[in-house]
Amino acid sequence: MNKYLKSNDWSIIEEGFDPKNHKSSESIFSIGNGHMGQRANFEERYSGKTLQGNYVAGIYYPDKTRVGWWKNGYPEYFAKVLNAPNWVGIDIQVNMEHLDLAKCKTEAFVRELNMKEGYLHRSFIAIFPNGNRIKVEAFRFLSITHPENGVIKYSVTPLNFSGEIIITPYIDGDVKNEDSNYNEKFWNILEVQSLIGEGYMICETKKLNFVVGFGMKYLLEINNVAFSETPTIIKGPKYTGNIIHVNAKQADTITITKYAAVLTSLNHPVDKILELTQKSTQNAFNLGFEKLFNKHKQKWSQTWQQSDIQIKGDIDAQQGIRFNIFHLNQTYTGNDERLNIGPKGFTGEKYGGSTYWDTEAYCIPFFLSTSSPNVTVNLLKYRYKHLKKAIENAKNLGFTNGAALYPMVTMNGEECHNEWEITFEEIHRNGAIAFAIYNYVRNTGDDNYLSNYGLEVLIAISRFWSQRVNFSHEKNKYVMLGVTGPNEYENNVNNNWYTNTLAQWCLIYTMQAIEKVKKINIGKYNMLADRILFNEKDETAKWHEIYDNMYLPFDAELNVFLQQDGYLDKEQTLAAEIDPAQRPINQHWSWDRILRSCLIKQADVLQGIYLFEENYDFETIKRHFNFYEARTVHESSLSPCVHSILAARIGYTQKAYELYLQTSRLDIDDYNNEVSEGLHITSMAGTWMSIVEGFGGKRVSEGKLCLYPLIPTNWDEYTFKIIYREVNLHVTVNKNFVKLETDLGVIIVNIYGIDIDVSAGKPQQVPTKNKRE
Amino acid sequence: MNKYLKSNDWSIIEEGFDPKNHKSSESIFSIGNGHMGQRANFEERYSGKTLQGNYVAGIYYPDKTRVGWWKNGYPEYFAKVLNAPNWVGIDIQVNMEHLDLAKCKTEAFVRELNMKEGYLHRSFIAIFPNGNRIKVEAFRFLSITHPENGVIKYSVTPLNFSGEIIITPYIDGDVKNEDSNYNEKFWNILEVQSLIGEGYMICETKKLNFVVGFGMKYLLEINNVAFSETPTIIKGPKYTGNIIHVNAKQADTITITKYAAVLTSLNHPVDKILELTQKSTQNAFNLGFEKLFNKHKQKWSQTWQQSDIQIKGDIDAQQGIRFNIFHLNQTYTGNDERLNIGPKGFTGEKYGGSTYWDTEAYCIPFFLSTSSPNVTVNLLKYRYKHLKKAIENAKNLGFTNGAALYPMVTMNGEECHNEWEITFEEIHRNGAIAFAIYNYVRNTGDDNYLSNYGLEVLIAISRFWSQRVNFSHEKNKYVMLGVTGPNEYENNVNNNWYTNTLAQWCLIYTMQAIEKVKKINIGKYNMLADRILFNEKDETAKWHEIYDNMYLPFDAELNVFLQQDGYLDKEQTLAAEIDPAQRPINQHWSWDRILRSCLIKQADVLQGIYLFEENYDFETIKRHFNFYEARTVHESSLSPCVHSILAARIGYTQKAYELYLQTSRLDIDDYNNEVSEGLHITSMAGTWMSIVEGFGGKRVSEGKLCLYPLIPTNWDEYTFKIIYREVNLHVTVNKNFVKLETDLGVIIVNIYGIDIDVSAGKPQQVPTKNKRE
Repeated sequence: MNKYLKSNDWSIIEEGFDPKNHKSSESIFSIGNGHMGQRANFEERYSGKTLQGNYVAGIYYPDKTRVGWWKNGYPEYFAKVLNAPNWVGIDIQVNMEHLDLAKCKTEAFVRELNMKEGYLHRSFIAIFPNGNRIKVEAFRFLSITHPENGVIKYSVTPLNFSGEIIITPYIDGDVKNEDSNYNEKFWNILEVQSLIGEGYMICETKKLNFVVGFGMKYLLEINNVAFSETPTIIKGPKYTGNIIHVNAKQADTITITKYAAVLTSLNHPVDKILELTQKSTQNAFNLGFEKLFNKHKQKWSQTWQQSDIQIKGDIDAQQGIRFNIFHLNQTYTGNDERLNIGPKGFTGEKYGGSTYWDTEAYCIPFFLSTSSPNVTVNLLKYRYKHLKKAIENAKNLGFTNGAALYPMVTMNGEECHNEWEITFEEIHRNGAIAFAIYNYVRNTGDDNYLSNYGLEVLIAISRFWSQRVNFSHEKNKYVMLGVTGPNEYENNVNNNWYTNTLAQWCLIYTMQAIEKVKKINIGKYNMLADRILFNEKDETAKWHEIYDNMYLPFDAELNVFLQQDGYLDKEQTLAAEIDPAQRPINQHWSWDRILRSCLIKQADVLQGIYLFEENYDFETIKRHFNFYEARTVHESSLSPCVHSILAARIGYTQKAYELYLQTSRLDIDDYNNEVSEGLHITSMAGTWMSIVEGFGGKRVSEGKLCLYPLIPTNWDEYTFKIIYREVNLHVTVNKNFVKLETDLGVIIVNIYGIDIDVSAGKPQQVPTKNKRE
Repeated sequence: MNKYLKSNDWSIIEEGFDPKNHKSSESIFSIGNGHMGQRANFEERYSGKTLQGNYVAGIYYPDKTRVGWWKNGYPEYFAKVLNAPNWVGIDIQVNMEHLDLAKCKTEAFVRELNMKEGYLHRSFIAIFPNGNRIKVEAFRFLSITHPENGVIKYSVTPLNFSGEIIITPYIDGDVKNEDSNYNEKFWNILEVQSLIGEGYMICETKKLNFVVGFGMKYLLEINNVAFSETPTIIKGPKYTGNIIHVNAKQADTITITKYAAVLTSLNHPVDKILELTQKSTQNAFNLGFEKLFNKHKQKWSQTWQQSDIQIKGDIDAQQGIRFNIFHLNQTYTGNDERLNIGPKGFTGEKYGGSTYWDTEAYCIPFFLSTSSPNVTVNLLKYRYKHLKKAIENAKNLGFTNGAALYPMVTMNGEECHNEWEITFEEIHRNGAIAFAIYNYVRNTGDDNYLSNYGLEVLIAISRFWSQRVNFSHEKNKYVMLGVTGPNEYENNVNNNWYTNTLAQWCLIYTMQAIEKVKKINIGKYNMLADRILFNEKDETAKWHEIYDNMYLPFDAELNVFLQQDGYLDKEQTLAAEIDPAQRPINQHWSWDRILRSCLIKQADVLQGIYLFEENYDFETIKRHFNFYEARTVHESSLSPCVHSILAARIGYTQKAYELYLQTSRLDIDDYNNEVSEGLHITSMAGTWMSIVEGFGGKRVSEGKLCLYPLIPTNWDEYTFKIIYREVNLHVTVNKNFVKLETDLGVIIVNIYGIDIDVSAGKPQQVPTKNKRE
């Protein structure tokens, strides 16, 4: 935990420069626009501790797998998010000394991430060792309307001297990934152009040959008057820049506005990249800072209009939720079905890959309610397009008949991860992908997605489950052996309740989906069945037999589902009984001790109860929450939100609030002392869920939108919006009432169990309940 | 499987040179003398595929651990057997062309490993591309009486030309390990001396700074007359050699005898190593080839006298068992308690480390019966000296009160291995170490070992078990969760029957040992108890409670112990039902599929039944053998021997013979297509056990030596010797009778259940039984 940032409703603000927080700030102040993103690295040189990070969506490197002990079935490479050439660089030299905050003193240092308008701003006075003082102001944004462009406005004012200031804007292609397995660099530089006032670099990733063009063009002004002297051009094999000598008088303000373009071969023909990069750079330059920034600001304003959650009376909670929503919208803008949401987004290298089950389980609920359905469709189609590789993956593991196992971690559909207990065994991810299809359909009513894409995925997943179980003569039931549930503090267990339950549900839902698709379009169904050699009668008969006879571990005495076989053989030491000095246990205990303990890393049985809540009555949910929350250490960022939602569900509002705070300020307050590595982007969606599904009680049940709003005692009011079947519902909850409004259309909302019609211009209001039973 | 070697009772013979077999032959023809050992690399240059291997006992390198995903508790390094500077090198040049069997043709190539006299011999005619033919003869041994010396006699005869032949004997320090984790070289060269006729190199290992001196001195003769011309000296930073130009006439035989010395800082003060290496080299040179070889031969003759097993009527079985005994005796000579027996001995790099539970479970039974008790004492003391580190290891994993967990793989007592399911969970190794103490005491009657060393180890191990179990309220028993048994095709299981049984036995035996030591020397006992803060009353009360209430998985219907909880939930597909094209499964199946299957890599429940055989009646053993043998794929070299012994025990002589053949010719016939990486040294002891404990039926029961000899149908006769309590029993078994003889002393032998006195000069004979019931 490290609370060094100011509380503020719309901004993240750091006052004073402390190098020990710099790497954390580089993560927290990251900016992105879906197409690219970057850590808040300084423009000027910095010789202190830093993680340089500049990422381009969809551009990755398949780094040769590194493993102590090889196991059959491991993938040969691990897809890494690539640290790309640095185009933000602007070197500043005063009297032959480089501006470097590791070497200069600073005064009045302020760094701000303005979330409302989507920019990063920094201002400070730097005092050089020789006493020279300069004021610096740096402003940066990655345009959300022109996603291939970024702009930096950087100004220097000598405060107590006149003299030469050298300014060197550049692009540097000599970059590396800190997590490179074999200490290689991942880029080849194909072409470098250095011109007066501009520079271009065409780079190619090794192995996969993605080509990315980087361009820069700048305007230099002194006291708002364009500077006309000719700069020196520099060109190296991996470097392009201009050196500008300015004879500055005291109090002169020298401002460089650097326009950049980043174009990739994902979107442009390789042989045009240079030309188009030049064009895009030129275009940004021509539009100019004001115009570009205004468009950017307007777009952010629209985004906020739909996705903002306002909390009155609790500024930390307010800042937390906006921080999460802001980063989610920076990471994925939803218009490219080849992209996905990596656990660290554009904020760090850790975890590599881009896609985990986080996307389906956490991000999709967020985007479903806050964006056009198209965004979710793109995320679903991402998996649809990987189906072939998922089938191949399952085949490599010995499965047949078109069974699919989606990878645990992937960039292009191939598995990247290589821990056997995760790679081969954490197979519940397959269920999350099926559930996301169901979730999309129930929220949007778009049954056509099933006939066009969804059913094919569902059948392949059900084929997997039906082979992954085996019949135990001992138990006279179908069992699923050797799995790892969401709780990764157990590995290679038998009959993980969550996985078995999810598999059982997948089989049932696939059969329902078959019936639906047959009704919608029997011709399409028949074509699909033919293409994938689906023997409906025999295969579904087998599925039926399995879901009717699935073994689900249960303890009659406690009346709880057991996380897995033998869970009660463990010593039942509760989380509260662990010496706080030993927490988090993953930093203090050896791995085997963690595995042997009954302690749970993240929601597991409760994850299942959350997903299939309507199958369980209030008392059952409460009993399971009480049992498992006491055993859960929440050492995954994905955990507290699910518990928070269930706590709200059973009326534990205070507990729900505590769990909410853990998730919403996880990164801002660096709960786990690791934010320097990057942010927890995917779990940010869980924070949103804690409010809307937790306090707001949002559910979709029997085709209806349901709410059951509660309000934490220290909040005065909160508001959120939900898109549901093309209607945009605006919900305000305070201590007295819940107000429902909509701009367009009409919607039936079930609130506190009672259906209400809400139509445009006719807000509805009901008294707020303060308890749930 | 690759059967390219000749059958021969005393030698391994390869006729004709086929480069594709060369790496395998380098392993199979390896020589060693306990102090050092080497693969059968050619003396002359070889540009084909080769694994250069020259190893010095006790000299290792702690290579920084390489792992894909770090787990708390992993060791930071992995001890590697070090490929040491190459002193066997003799370059041969004819008319400026190097002798290189990858480039020359060969005729009459014969390679022989003479196991009777312990040497490696090679002769061939090489035909150079230009047609020049030379005859080469190479003879090499590592002296077993002067273990710091090795000798090579190498001769070249031009067959069809006269001309210059250049001979370059050298020592090369520029060597590397193929398994280096970070592609580093592990040696620094401290000093190189090049003199006329001799050369020295003092080398130091990185990190641990072991210093090793290498020396060479040669004699060159032409047609047995010393050659007097002055050679050219070469000296490089990592190289010392002499270049000798010989103007040879056709049919002249040029012979170089190269004497080498290898001295280490384990045995000598660092500042004397150079001087002593020079002395030792000089001394070998002065003694001369004949004298050194004769002593060596005599010593081997003595070794064979004690340890040979003769098999009449089955030359392959004869060759197999001698090959195994020969390599065991080459690897460990038993006089240094700092050394141990690595799985690959001096024949390859694989597995690194030196000590696995193989030593206690397999090698100790061999050395106990074929060597002075001292050899076993040294192996036991090796572990005794590591006790402190084993306690530290357990402490790091969260255990307290002086509990010890010995490492899975070690060189100096610290853990090297880093797979969580093995490192932290394959804890049965602790039991093997306790059992070895018991085994030593019951074979030798040396109770004093317990009071001097053994008890301290036993208490620390029992302390570990008593903390590693936990009480399950569910089962109302003590359970042991999260372990890996000897069958590594199951990981992280609960209640592995073997481990639970072994732990239970350890507790019982430790309590018996306490009583014994108290009787022998109460003062010593009290001192020990004080020193290790042993609270006998409370601790043993707890142990008692645990062993009385240990949970042992059992299926009442089948009446068999279950390998672990839930074993019967698995699909019971037997080994015989697997498509042979899918065998070995570890080369064809993904790891999770292997884990989920009921197939067993190596003896697990049966390993326990083997150890504690006297607790189970004939029918029980048979029932378990039938059940588990059908499920065992024997994909560990340590497996078939245990099954072979049990098969013999229940009278399945033919099955025992088949399993014996698998183990005895595993390397010669390269069953697993991997002998090129090195030999399976430790499992060779298992081969010996298959004969003596299997066919011979050797047991020690209630202080008595018992035999129950059977003979495989295709053998005419076999003989073996057993040292038991200072008496050396010679056993001959043929179809008609079993003959027991001893040279000295008197011994009661229980044969076929009847006690017989055998005394010196009075052989006893009983009719051979051909069945066991």
